[in-house]
Amino acid sequence: MTAPAFERVAIIGFGLIGSSLGRALRAHGVAGEIVACDSDAAALDEIASLGLADRLGADPAEAVEGADLVVICTPVGSYAAIGAAIAPHLTPGVIVTDVGSVKQSVIRDLLPLIPAHAQLVPGHPIAGTEKSGPANGFAGLFEGRWAVLTPLPATDRAAIERVASLWRAIGSEVVEMEAAHHDKVLAITSHLPHLIAYTIVGTAVDLEESLQSEVIKFSAGGFRDFTRIAASDPIFWRDVFLNNREAVLEMLQRLTEDLSALQRAIRRGEGDFLEERFARAREIRRGVIEAKQA
Amino acid sequence: MTAPAFERVAIIGFGLIGSSLGRALRAHGVAGEIVACDSDAAALDEIASLGLADRLGADPAEAVEGADLVVICTPVGSYAAIGAAIAPHLTPGVIVTDVGSVKQSVIRDLLPLIPAHAQLVPGHPIAGTEKSGPANGFAGLFEGRWAVLTPLPATDRAAIERVASLWRAIGSEVVEMEAAHHDKVLAITSHLPHLIAYTIVGTAVDLEESLQSEVIKFSAGGFRDFTRIAASDPIFWRDVFLNNREAVLEMLQRLTEDLSALQRAIRRGEGDFLEERFARAREIRRGVIEAKQA
Repeated sequence: MTAPAFERVAIIGFGLIGSSLGRALRAHGVAGEIVACDSDAAALDEIASLGLADRLGADPAEAVEGADLVVICTPVGSYAAIGAAIAPHLTPGVIVTDVGSVKQSVIRDLLPLIPAHAQLVPGHPIAGTEKSGPANGFAGLFEGRWAVLTPLPATDRAAIERVASLWRAIGSEVVEMEAAHHDKVLAITSHLPHLIAYTIVGTAVDLEESLQSEVIKFSAGGFRDFTRIAASDPIFWRDVFLNNREAVLEMLQRLTEDLSALQRAIRRGEGDFLEERFARAREIRRGVIEAKQA
Repeated sequence: MTAPAFERVAIIGFGLIGSSLGRALRAHGVAGEIVACDSDAAALDEIASLGLADRLGADPAEAVEGADLVVICTPVGSYAAIGAAIAPHLTPGVIVTDVGSVKQSVIRDLLPLIPAHAQLVPGHPIAGTEKSGPANGFAGLFEGRWAVLTPLPATDRAAIERVASLWRAIGSEVVEMEAAHHDKVLAITSHLPHLIAYTIVGTAVDLEESLQSEVIKFSAGGFRDFTRIAASDPIFWRDVFLNNREAVLEMLQRLTEDLSALQRAIRRGEGDFLEERFARAREIRRGVIEAKQA
């Protein structure tokens, strides 16, 4: 039996993603000990009763003591505060990584705080569900999914490899890219879809009351998929939009232009244009299925 | 053993919905004979090899001969032509119904063509998948879903009841409403979600080539759900938008305003506004789950 890759892993923010990671690390023997840290008292109770961690508490500074790996899994808006809290308590040689959906802001907020005796390896597993909280996590969440790492030029290669090995050990494929590029790709593949889902569901909420109950009743025509996406954690997503502002606004601008073109075609009854646009969109689905991300 | 409710059911357009209906009617003994009519030669071959119909052919006029129920399941843009083709061949006492996603245009296109010895009962089952063609249909598609009927003031009550019984027999719940109201509700619950999904996938298609492959690779962050919706049949949807123009444009206008408000909040960094909007949208999901339409 080989020793676990990390002796003590501190997971800061033990919700859907954090608890799934904790479960996966345990299931694959990657961590000797799991330290769960969460600011929510109810979540801590759940973690305790589900037996998901070896140690747990609400204080990030305590949680990182003696850890050789720290994984930040809180909404990205909290990183600066967490970084400031944990920095003085980081063990020499520790690797600090994260799972945040935005990477430039993470680097902006964390890098200045991380001491020279620690290594920052920003990361983002492209996986999740619309559910929240430790009870909804599961060990298989990352299987067959991509884990993106956005290391900095100065990041120690060995530290990057250790984090990459961790993700591979729990079933993910690892890819490295620049933080700015990551933020642009995710703006279109994740952030914009969530913004649109929130918007369309919000538009339905604002309908005359007589229509509203019917919107739910007849949601099987497409709307229900948007309600699922719009059921995601509001604070998590608020932080994503505030911290990936430029890329999201750029993609939103493109979307708005395309939507105007379709609107005009509908108004003018231009069937050929609509059909051609719809047929092109359909092709992309084939690519997603072939890439096994469906 | 009781006699089937209809002796011969002619289904015009035997794709995903038409073939699912045919399968369901057979499975529940609702139809003595299924006549499948489709203009696509490849579809006819599939229907024959899957043994989905008792008779089949490409000519709607022939298909309706001797039928006591005709169900039109083609894209709504084809209704006027189909109505003209079948009208002279309808058997006295026949009921003509349909499954079209728009109801005012169906009435506009069909009602003037239906002879006095036939009854028109416009209908719309709120069910479907993103797949197309007879091979993808299945008998359980309508179970637990709503079937909307939009009869006219002059429609014979007995005919309405017979169509309602058919949907109940195959597992649906039936609701009656006015065609204009149906078209408004479906504009927000089905048509707008599809338009948005097509748009966002189209926006991704237009990205620089370097980004495009990554959009597919990292689609698990939300985008893949949109690609699924955008994989729906282009002609079917072209016809929906052309035939429910006013309601779709009205809902699109509301959506655009709401999207602008979120865009402004992101630009200005108004986190509280975003969080509040997202939290409201999340509530709707609960309603969908409670209504068992999730």
